[in-house]
Amino acid sequence: MELKSFIRDVPNFPVAGVTFKDISPLLEAPEAFNFAIDKMVSAMKDHGVTKVAAIDSRGFVFGAPAARELRLPLVLVRKPGKLPSETVGVSYNLEYGSGSLEVHRDAVGPDCRVAIVDDVLATGGTAEAAARLVRQLGGKVVLSLFLLELGFLGGRGKLGDQGEILSLVNY
Amino acid sequence: MELKSFIRDVPNFPVAGVTFKDISPLLEAPEAFNFAIDKMVSAMKDHGVTKVAAIDSRGFVFGAPAARELRLPLVLVRKPGKLPSETVGVSYNLEYGSGSLEVHRDAVGPDCRVAIVDDVLATGGTAEAAARLVRQLGGKVVLSLFLLELGFLGGRGKLGDQGEILSLVNY
Repeated sequence: MELKSFIRDVPNFPVAGVTFKDISPLLEAPEAFNFAIDKMVSAMKDHGVTKVAAIDSRGFVFGAPAARELRLPLVLVRKPGKLPSETVGVSYNLEYGSGSLEVHRDAVGPDCRVAIVDDVLATGGTAEAAARLVRQLGGKVVLSLFLLELGFLGGRGKLGDQGEILSLVNY
Repeated sequence: MELKSFIRDVPNFPVAGVTFKDISPLLEAPEAFNFAIDKMVSAMKDHGVTKVAAIDSRGFVFGAPAARELRLPLVLVRKPGKLPSETVGVSYNLEYGSGSLEVHRDAVGPDCRVAIVDDVLATGGTAEAAARLVRQLGGKVVLSLFLLELGFLGGRGKLGDQGEILSLVNY
């Protein structure tokens, strides 16, 4: 299946001069969405993943169905102030500014083989920050999964110790 | 299954005096998460749902797996400024302040039988706003699904024409 045909270009979003890759058509096409989830599930199986860490918020859209299918625990990696219990946090640079991410301190432990899931790999800042959080809690990132990768931004080169990096669509 | 045993109380979050119902333990317990999704899938089948509208952002966690299972289109109802293409928006009051929601104008049409999905029904502001958006685009809301309902806030009474209202856990 050619997933790229389900992703549309939206010019000048979120800022002038940038063309945004909109995944809405893919989410509204069950055959394409399910194909993408099947690929992610298969990669998680191959890597012996024991926990799915989905990044706020479109990572939830892909991480949650994969976690359900594999009957794996789902951990939400969230923007600051969203998680109610005790958290650890990190800051990072991203394509259009900077940000930070948090995860519950009790959500990851030393035995965890974690897959990080997000919709887009852009500059890599978010994914690298999520991996740092997992490692900080003693977990091992064995897989980093993205629906699409903006290869021209070079994000893959900034990712460190975070397992196989798999993107289903590349630009 | 007693889903309530997978939801933990976090006192004084997000503000002093409020006890937050944290669904993280449920997401990390595959048997509980899958039981909840099964219930949502079943309700969607019963109501002839043709489109799943998941509310930003924990609604994605429940809406996405249900859409995958039923092979239904998934529409994201998002906070302002997140959707790149042409949107319609509404404002609403919620438990801790006010907010607004947007949906892509081309995401819902007159033939759609929509299920709105979110994690929590609190004061009802968010769910009511999402239903207004769907109706504004000509769709029919046949089902409003929540993992949990804070019944003591009376949100159910504020919901209008939005189909059956089903919460899996009630407080």
